[in-house]
Amino acid sequence: MSGNQRGLVIVYTGDGKGKSTAAFGLVVRALGYGWRVAVLQFVKGTWRTGEERGFAKFGGNLVLRKLGVGFVTWHPKKSFEEHVEAARKAWEEAKRAVLSDEFDLVVLDELNNATRFGLIPVEEVLWLITNKPRRLHLVLTGRGADERVIEAADLVTEMKMVKHPFEHGEWARAGIDY
Amino acid sequence: MSGNQRGLVIVYTGDGKGKSTAAFGLVVRALGYGWRVAVLQFVKGTWRTGEERGFAKFGGNLVLRKLGVGFVTWHPKKSFEEHVEAARKAWEEAKRAVLSDEFDLVVLDELNNATRFGLIPVEEVLWLITNKPRRLHLVLTGRGADERVIEAADLVTEMKMVKHPFEHGEWARAGIDY
Repeated sequence: MSGNQRGLVIVYTGDGKGKSTAAFGLVVRALGYGWRVAVLQFVKGTWRTGEERGFAKFGGNLVLRKLGVGFVTWHPKKSFEEHVEAARKAWEEAKRAVLSDEFDLVVLDELNNATRFGLIPVEEVLWLITNKPRRLHLVLTGRGADERVIEAADLVTEMKMVKHPFEHGEWARAGIDY
Repeated sequence: MSGNQRGLVIVYTGDGKGKSTAAFGLVVRALGYGWRVAVLQFVKGTWRTGEERGFAKFGGNLVLRKLGVGFVTWHPKKSFEEHVEAARKAWEEAKRAVLSDEFDLVVLDELNNATRFGLIPVEEVLWLITNKPRRLHLVLTGRGADERVIEAADLVTEMKMVKHPFEHGEWARAGIDY
């Protein structure tokens, strides 16, 4: 329980690594204090990520779900409208989780990307920030956070890429990148 | 096990929030894949942090220790020499953990602060980066990472403070800041 204090709206954005992982670190702390946590990931993917495997070993009160959103530009079979429809369903689920008042911390992982690509209107996100339960901590990750979301947030960190192994021809690695 | 790939040297630095928490997120993923992990914190403090409480609930192979380093400038009873001596002991322990080859991921949390304040020579850190087991992933956190450490690292993210609730007169909170 996060008590009677006002919950924070936290944004991790920028082009560097460490946005989602920082959110997962907050989840560890929250579970440590016995909070109830939801991590809703605005991503596609059927493989099992490291965070799913890791959090599955936890005893805490955690809901972790991939919402199947992702604007896969190189996928010619899906129209933009289909992407918007998938995002709309995901957003409804995220809203339900936030407004349910059943959680102390909710992470909307990679949400900023969905708004950046126009899949979810930024006005919806601003509405949710205003109408979330007072004590709930809400964490939004993803590059390209909208200026109005940054304005509405309490704590904003820009993860700036200083150096990335992709520059040296390396690729995403299990345990580090997913 | 991280396999035969070369392990990465990852640095999270900058004045923004999310450096240690990003490292903890990597720990979640690593434990998810069954890696053996050590988190050695170059911090003082006797209270039980959220990450300690959280990770205590994990089933994975994790060692988490506070090494009792911290350059407490407002503490008049300790001389600089005493701080250096505490840091030296902590560094020996960190070196043992890295060189033991018993871990797949080692996090030296807040180490950059200890080098920044001259408590641990940066040459020692560079030596350890060069001499770590090849497959070990090594994560260094803390603001003010030395340029030579950044140069020697594979992946560097600067956590830049865009907005912080301290600006609005709020203070560190359980579950978010520790």
